[in-house]
Amino acid sequence: MAVTQLNPTSTKTHLHPSQLSFLSRSLPIKRHCAFAPLHRTQHAKISCSVAPNQVQVPTVVTQEPKGKPDCYGVFCLTYDLRAEEETRSWKKLINIAVSGAAGMIANHLLFKLASGEVFGPNQPIALKLLGSERSIQALEGVAMELEDSLFPLLREVSIGIDAYEVFQDAEWALLIGAKPRGPGMERADLLDINGQIYAEQGKALNAVASRNVKVIVVGNPCNTNALICLKNAPNIPAKNFHALTRLDENRAKCQLALKAGVFYDKVSNVTIWGNHSTTQVPDFLNARIDGLPVKDVVKDRKWLEEEFTEKVQKRGGVLIQKWGRSSAASTSVSIVDAIRSLITPTPEGDWFSSGVYSNGNPYGIAEGIVFSMPCRSKGDGDYELVKDVIFDDYLRKRIAKTEAELLAEKRCVAHLTGEGIAVCDLPGDTMLPGEM
Amino acid sequence: MAVTQLNPTSTKTHLHPSQLSFLSRSLPIKRHCAFAPLHRTQHAKISCSVAPNQVQVPTVVTQEPKGKPDCYGVFCLTYDLRAEEETRSWKKLINIAVSGAAGMIANHLLFKLASGEVFGPNQPIALKLLGSERSIQALEGVAMELEDSLFPLLREVSIGIDAYEVFQDAEWALLIGAKPRGPGMERADLLDINGQIYAEQGKALNAVASRNVKVIVVGNPCNTNALICLKNAPNIPAKNFHALTRLDENRAKCQLALKAGVFYDKVSNVTIWGNHSTTQVPDFLNARIDGLPVKDVVKDRKWLEEEFTEKVQKRGGVLIQKWGRSSAASTSVSIVDAIRSLITPTPEGDWFSSGVYSNGNPYGIAEGIVFSMPCRSKGDGDYELVKDVIFDDYLRKRIAKTEAELLAEKRCVAHLTGEGIAVCDLPGDTMLPGEM
Repeated sequence: MAVTQLNPTSTKTHLHPSQLSFLSRSLPIKRHCAFAPLHRTQHAKISCSVAPNQVQVPTVVTQEPKGKPDCYGVFCLTYDLRAEEETRSWKKLINIAVSGAAGMIANHLLFKLASGEVFGPNQPIALKLLGSERSIQALEGVAMELEDSLFPLLREVSIGIDAYEVFQDAEWALLIGAKPRGPGMERADLLDINGQIYAEQGKALNAVASRNVKVIVVGNPCNTNALICLKNAPNIPAKNFHALTRLDENRAKCQLALKAGVFYDKVSNVTIWGNHSTTQVPDFLNARIDGLPVKDVVKDRKWLEEEFTEKVQKRGGVLIQKWGRSSAASTSVSIVDAIRSLITPTPEGDWFSSGVYSNGNPYGIAEGIVFSMPCRSKGDGDYELVKDVIFDDYLRKRIAKTEAELLAEKRCVAHLTGEGIAVCDLPGDTMLPGEM
Repeated sequence: MAVTQLNPTSTKTHLHPSQLSFLSRSLPIKRHCAFAPLHRTQHAKISCSVAPNQVQVPTVVTQEPKGKPDCYGVFCLTYDLRAEEETRSWKKLINIAVSGAAGMIANHLLFKLASGEVFGPNQPIALKLLGSERSIQALEGVAMELEDSLFPLLREVSIGIDAYEVFQDAEWALLIGAKPRGPGMERADLLDINGQIYAEQGKALNAVASRNVKVIVVGNPCNTNALICLKNAPNIPAKNFHALTRLDENRAKCQLALKAGVFYDKVSNVTIWGNHSTTQVPDFLNARIDGLPVKDVVKDRKWLEEEFTEKVQKRGGVLIQKWGRSSAASTSVSIVDAIRSLITPTPEGDWFSSGVYSNGNPYGIAEGIVFSMPCRSKGDGDYELVKDVIFDDYLRKRIAKTEAELLAEKRCVAHLTGEGIAVCDLPGDTMLPGEM
């Protein structure tokens, strides 16, 4: 049991100007940017275009350096998108910020975002990649591969290490970056070290992001990181912050399908309740298989109560044994699922799980924490909590346990949420196997 | 300069039965498969479904073990797809085989294939993953992540280490697997070691794949691997074999865009001629920017003749410096581009590059080699060579050099193509930086 008291003044991780100057000093990015004026001159000579939908000559403008992260390569040319908006019925460009952008999860996610499969074939996007001083070279590599992929909808890529620059005008913030747990590090230490990052990123979002930015926190411990983030961003609706439990939901659906002998698309209404940790509750009481309650299809109550949850939770650990790495591809798919669930109407009668701010929930769960619950969306980026769910003693008891854990985590990060002095009385290690 | 004579009898790499039995002995796959009969019984109790398009109960049948690679997890249940074919207007399932399936390129590619973004939202697919004994555990990890991603169009996943099983009825074979070059290994040795693999895979395709299978060879040296493969598959049209030069084309387009100061979607008609090696010829003579010849837009002839080709070729090496790994995401995007170019009509006036069998080409290039050339497709999986291209002395001279290299590579693998005794008189190392 770890008891830690932390000094609230130690939380500042905003980068020092000397760290930022590293960027402009040693990176070849500027070299690319310097092309822009030359291009503008050349551009006047181009008078016709090759493909039917490309009849208008784009206007190339130079990048504004102030308050903007460094653009990369071909993306340093900012194009007048009006031509495409008119001839291709394109929507207005949206800004998507991704932290931990040099990591493996992001390496899958960024190419999905850029390909148009997430936001649709008429939605041009700008990717704003947040890395660390250590990963900035790798970020350039990511930007190079994005360039080489020639995605027509990807109109801007910028990279940086300062959240206050990278999050500028972000309409989505996909926060994947987190520090891994070092040897001998207690869960309380991890909560603090990552909590500091998320406090700072919350402040940055509050300062510079779109007022209606949607935030999905993936970096662990994601529920409490999301709580810290939203508490540090008082000018952004708390409802806009999500902690990713969608991979758990997907894994739960797959395990129920396997047990029932049906294809996974027959499994619906699966909720993950609570924390993205071993106290999480994959709900088989409300879940359905081919429209029937799971309990009417899978009669093995012992399997449901014991093995099912274990299978969902140990999945990441088994994967690491097999694959040698933690899941990146399927995590990235689940982030895409989470985004799509907010921008497309939820199918009639179904729902999806997301870790959301618990205030005003109809289930009697404590307020003031980020708790995974069943949600429905009209596809407008917003969601509402599902009312018609049932509980039994088993489910109530397990929900109470994950709720208690999240309340304990909250007390442990009070110094990061502006709620006084932190007191850590966390239960044992509840990190999911195979993560971090 | 390496001169090697190789024994034609040393080429057999087909796996010994004792290696195969490893699979059934030690893997937990069978455990999953054993669920199937149980499920069938349970299934009779399911009588209604939840979503509008899922009104028909699927028929679960057990997997035929004979001649089939091992199915994985939930995919061991084979479903009657007629319900989906009728209610969702789904096409008939297609089989896609991928070698090197546990590697990083495949890790990006498989999830793209499974998501439906390559073959479209009405095309259910079966993925057949070929690995090695060393990578079979990792392949299970890949299959687990595919399960957890709940892709509705992904109806079967099977894994194996015997090409004769995995390639059964394959309609596409995406051959990524290749041995990396070890320390001190000559290019001739690499040609032989990978040539043996591709000879065996050609034989396997010839024996068990669809008679019209389309084959894209990615593993290096990909042109000569593709040649070996097609020579060992006499019952499959030679025209169906491709060596991937699409990443080179994409990189060339990006570099031309950067130089001209335009977005990359304005660059068209870019051919990569010849070998996927440092003798490759990115063609700026026929390329167009906004419909105009490149030379009318980029007046810097020195840049075009010297720096342009170098920039394209050194891209992989620069990427490895930055990113620490060779390109996987953008390579996988270029494989998707190559597939899409064959299954969708080529835009009017444009073309794409692919390494194809040179017999009957209109450019005067030697016959009997796999040479990258400009192609157009009606979207039926087939292609025709583009006739209206121009040549100048510079282009002719460079094409002659890459042609000479491919003819030398061909002589070096004569023992693998049934053309006698190999004689290796390869020029210096022409491996692209950052590859293998």
